[in-house]
Amino acid sequence: MVTKHQIKLIKSLAQKKYRQQLGLFTVEGIKGIEEFLNSNFQLENLFTTKPVFDAPSNLTTKISETELKKISSLKNPNTAIAIFKIPKEVKVDYKGLVIVLDAVRDPGNLGTIIRLCDWYGVKNLVCSSNTVDCYNSKVVQATMGSLTRVNIEYTDLEAYLKASPCKVFGTFMEGENIYRLELPAEGVIVLGNEANGISKPIKKFLDKKVSIPQFGEFRKTESLNVANAAAIVLSEFKRRTIEM
Amino acid sequence: MVTKHQIKLIKSLAQKKYRQQLGLFTVEGIKGIEEFLNSNFQLENLFTTKPVFDAPSNLTTKISETELKKISSLKNPNTAIAIFKIPKEVKVDYKGLVIVLDAVRDPGNLGTIIRLCDWYGVKNLVCSSNTVDCYNSKVVQATMGSLTRVNIEYTDLEAYLKASPCKVFGTFMEGENIYRLELPAEGVIVLGNEANGISKPIKKFLDKKVSIPQFGEFRKTESLNVANAAAIVLSEFKRRTIEM
Repeated sequence: MVTKHQIKLIKSLAQKKYRQQLGLFTVEGIKGIEEFLNSNFQLENLFTTKPVFDAPSNLTTKISETELKKISSLKNPNTAIAIFKIPKEVKVDYKGLVIVLDAVRDPGNLGTIIRLCDWYGVKNLVCSSNTVDCYNSKVVQATMGSLTRVNIEYTDLEAYLKASPCKVFGTFMEGENIYRLELPAEGVIVLGNEANGISKPIKKFLDKKVSIPQFGEFRKTESLNVANAAAIVLSEFKRRTIEM
Repeated sequence: MVTKHQIKLIKSLAQKKYRQQLGLFTVEGIKGIEEFLNSNFQLENLFTTKPVFDAPSNLTTKISETELKKISSLKNPNTAIAIFKIPKEVKVDYKGLVIVLDAVRDPGNLGTIIRLCDWYGVKNLVCSSNTVDCYNSKVVQATMGSLTRVNIEYTDLEAYLKASPCKVFGTFMEGENIYRLELPAEGVIVLGNEANGISKPIKKFLDKKVSIPQFGEFRKTESLNVANAAAIVLSEFKRRTIEM
């Protein structure tokens, strides 16, 4: 059974303020929870309708479907909801490729970018403080467990970029054709806000503006979705590291 | 002023059944509506809080912010909502690159895939009948106007693929490394469902299974988001058509 106090706690974790105060966040669904259980993340509490998890019994509470519906943030909740501790933020270094996000606001976009980083072996993701919180439940959901394998630091981008010993790339509508560029195995790639792109104060720290060219007769597409742009840019950097 | 009858009509268009019965769909926001007004789509009715559109006055209704909130499907409605006629479906041919979607269910994914097709000059998109409807308001929203420039046909995929004179490619977790393959300028690319990938009956029509390789030490990412996979695959096909 889930207590009133626990319901209140879980609901409060929908807000960044309370996640930060309490150092806790929620994960929903069997697959997602399993990924976190098999990682360095520490379980605080698990509420589940079925005994399908390999989790300490003193942290596990059996609940009913009705209770699950009450505490879930999803329309169609899937079996369980878990509370994990937010780990101490690890300082991101400049090793390998680093992705830097300048005010990405959509949780789905951040989530799929984290998943992309994991796919392409990018360990370090740096976010401006006005980028959506990576412990937002929609972000956690969209990462499909990749959040357990990517270091994420929220920091002052200007200071981070200023101190970079590596080349800093930024994506723009008007930049050098990425398909024609030589790209290094190490470097920092900045992606901008969904509506406004990379902000003015950040632009001066860029060494190279890169662009994904448009094709076809129309060329009227306003822009690419930022997660799709991230996918294409990461693909371009990484394919050059393959021996052909 | 918006009448009760109009409110009922607009609300009904949230359902595919009524969109198909009435041959109408809705578009929200200034930019999106402008893209449709500047296309071959036919306006049925425009409801706007501000006179910012170049639209026939007999089809335009001035409404209040309160009325807009009442008819909008968005949390934060933006100025206007328009009803357009669903055009007659154009039969998709096999020219250039064709994207085929096998049961893509998420409106955001379909929307960004349409936007990607537009970006990469792919004119033809073929969807299985159980792919989400492209006139769903969330799809329309996510296409950012690209829906006006891509032909979309919902059809029997087996028949379409069987008749293909071009090579049919499919994306899989286990396939040939796309970075190492020679890819043609014309061809059919099949992308599968978010959870289950390409379905069994479709697999037998594929000439080549391609795969986006994972990088890094973990290689535990379960899969890529289908729209991101589409982005990377389209990027790979299209960059090979550029003179270097």
